[in-house]
Amino acid sequence: MTTSEFQHVLSEQDGPTVRITMNRPERRNSLSAEHLAELRRAFQEAGETKATGIVLAGAGPVFSAGHDFADVAERDLAGVRELLRLCSSLMRTVQSVPQVVIARVHGLATAAGCQLVASCDLAVAGESAGFALPGGKGGWFCHTPSVPVARSVGRKRLMEMALTGDVVDAATAERWGLVNRAVPDAELDAAVADLLGRATRGSRHAKAIGKQTLYAQLDRPEDEAYALATEVMAGTSQTPDARESMRAFLEKRRPTWTE
Amino acid sequence: MTTSEFQHVLSEQDGPTVRITMNRPERRNSLSAEHLAELRRAFQEAGETKATGIVLAGAGPVFSAGHDFADVAERDLAGVRELLRLCSSLMRTVQSVPQVVIARVHGLATAAGCQLVASCDLAVAGESAGFALPGGKGGWFCHTPSVPVARSVGRKRLMEMALTGDVVDAATAERWGLVNRAVPDAELDAAVADLLGRATRGSRHAKAIGKQTLYAQLDRPEDEAYALATEVMAGTSQTPDARESMRAFLEKRRPTWTE
Amino acid sequence: MTTSEFQHVLSEQDGPTVRITMNRPERRNSLSAEHLAELRRAFQEAGETKATGIVLAGAGPVFSAGHDFADVAERDLAGVRELLRLCSSLMRTVQSVPQVVIARVHGLATAAGCQLVASCDLAVAGESAGFALPGGKGGWFCHTPSVPVARSVGRKRLMEMALTGDVVDAATAERWGLVNRAVPDAELDAAVADLLGRATRGSRHAKAIGKQTLYAQLDRPEDEAYALATEVMAGTSQTPDARESMRAFLEKRRPTWTE
Repeated sequence: MTTSEFQHVLSEQDGPTVRITMNRPERRNSLSAEHLAELRRAFQEAGETKATGIVLAGAGPVFSAGHDFADVAERDLAGVRELLRLCSSLMRTVQSVPQVVIARVHGLATAAGCQLVASCDLAVAGESAGFALPGGKGGWFCHTPSVPVARSVGRKRLMEMALTGDVVDAATAERWGLVNRAVPDAELDAAVADLLGRATRGSRHAKAIGKQTLYAQLDRPEDEAYALATEVMAGTSQTPDARESMRAFLEKRRPTWTE
Repeated sequence: MTTSEFQHVLSEQDGPTVRITMNRPERRNSLSAEHLAELRRAFQEAGETKATGIVLAGAGPVFSAGHDFADVAERDLAGVRELLRLCSSLMRTVQSVPQVVIARVHGLATAAGCQLVASCDLAVAGESAGFALPGGKGGWFCHTPSVPVARSVGRKRLMEMALTGDVVDAATAERWGLVNRAVPDAELDAAVADLLGRATRGSRHAKAIGKQTLYAQLDRPEDEAYALATEVMAGTSQTPDARESMRAFLEKRRPTWTE
Repeated sequence: MTTSEFQHVLSEQDGPTVRITMNRPERRNSLSAEHLAELRRAFQEAGETKATGIVLAGAGPVFSAGHDFADVAERDLAGVRELLRLCSSLMRTVQSVPQVVIARVHGLATAAGCQLVASCDLAVAGESAGFALPGGKGGWFCHTPSVPVARSVGRKRLMEMALTGDVVDAATAERWGLVNRAVPDAELDAAVADLLGRATRGSRHAKAIGKQTLYAQLDRPEDEAYALATEVMAGTSQTPDARESMRAFLEKRRPTWTE
């Protein structure tokens, strides 16, 4: 196991999986600028490894409480804009690394913490998990956290979360499609390992292009999405792993992927 | 309580809530041009009050039967276009007023009546409620009502509603995300009051910008949505209510909002 | 009953319904270039009839296994691009014919087979049905099949299907909105007939324009969708069937549609 240590983040590689842990439990894993920057760096570094999966977890009783008001309260417009751009940049990094990223959610995931869950490719929630966009009942609305949440749940559910600020429990989050699974807390690690294991089979190269193309086509008009997906799929048909997968299928043998 | 009376609409303000009632039960609250214009005016006037929430309800056994064929049947192309533009303008007004708008649905909500439900920020349905796009089984397809319904439910469900024209019951509408809650009719008013109460806490100013920005970002590509949400969220961080919410949190006291 | 026979496809017209059957069971109804071209031609020919509905089914134990690797493995970039364009063209044809198209799914629908289900207007699945994007666990990612699946199910569910490649059962597919109904296999034909019957009532002309406009407005921004839907709805208000539906309603009689 290889461990990179940051001030606020733990990053450990164990075989094919990098586990990135928000490790600021005394601040409820709130996302100060330093924490955001370290998380982004941890994802970038994991992205450059040959790992196939990344688990994002939180240390302590809370997944993440979102932005750290102590870090926001005295910033001017330019300062807040810079912080939010850093935050959005982390979200885009999560979606652009070649690995499959899965959120392991226990306890509360609120505001930018909820945004992180919505931005991961996959998410499994323990029964203790809760999801909220609390700006809706305060004085600073959760505008940016609503962006990926809006793209995960239906419109009326988004409006309910964003306007009430109330906590949605794990079972409801599964029903609404904000997470893939809700399981008892005692089964959380096993459920994460199971889903990540199934999501990281096959060619590492094909999966990376697959994930990145999904995000590129997702919210385009259907004809533009087809044009993009067709070019990528035609191009990748010529790669060694695509050729191997077809030949192995036709020869009824197990395929071997390139490193 | 303040009451504005129109010919077809009742509008009553009771403390922080304006209750707008379609009051044409003898015509199943169908949406003639006059009714549409009055509804739009009622929403515009409510939008200029300091109310925080608007309830849209229907008098009599039906929520709304949609367009009034007696008002459509003899119109020429320009006349129908004008009527539909008025109708769409009402839908946009519902989404653009600063208040949280909740539909209180009992009985049938069909065609433009169903469109109204889909256009409200939130919706609660009594068990007697039913939702339909009946043009699909007739001779004039529900083209414009399908626009917000398509943005609330999944594609296959939209196709089923639009092509069959059949009534979807309240429980199914909740499961599909067309309404937030389905409850027994006897609990409808309490459920509306509960959800609206939770959705109208916090800063009135922050909520208004929040709601309007949600609609602005909802169906843009994700990167454009982020660009918009980031600018709005950075800008609003400098408002008195945002500052107050952060300081109150850090000082562990209840915030006080500007009027 | 009129029967058109192709090499890989059966097309039978029985009254108002054309039944198109993928008839290559020994190849699990896989979609070679010839099979795709025949399917597209079968849909085009059905589209020119006065039928109101089209059922798409598969012969044998599998609905469709997607592309035929024997037909792909030795193609170069230009050859695969041509094949995928033919495939996307079939999907667009399904969505553009004036009839209501319903998938009757038993057994596995994988890769482009799953894409076909997502591309039909409606779908009913027997309990034996399963849906998968298996490229995700192989070496050639299901890029184009993900396009319509992404527009039918939520984002986290899409990611799970596309990344794991695992089979989603019929009940889950119904819950996620990939199909309209999941029923016991013994009730599959009856459920298809029931839903198609309800979806093909009313004016044939109004329905055709309705379906085509739904696809045109679906993934546009809401204001563009309204502009389009308003023009089409105003225009169609002047058609004989729209006039007839309004007059029949007002005169309390059954409408009669033009041929």
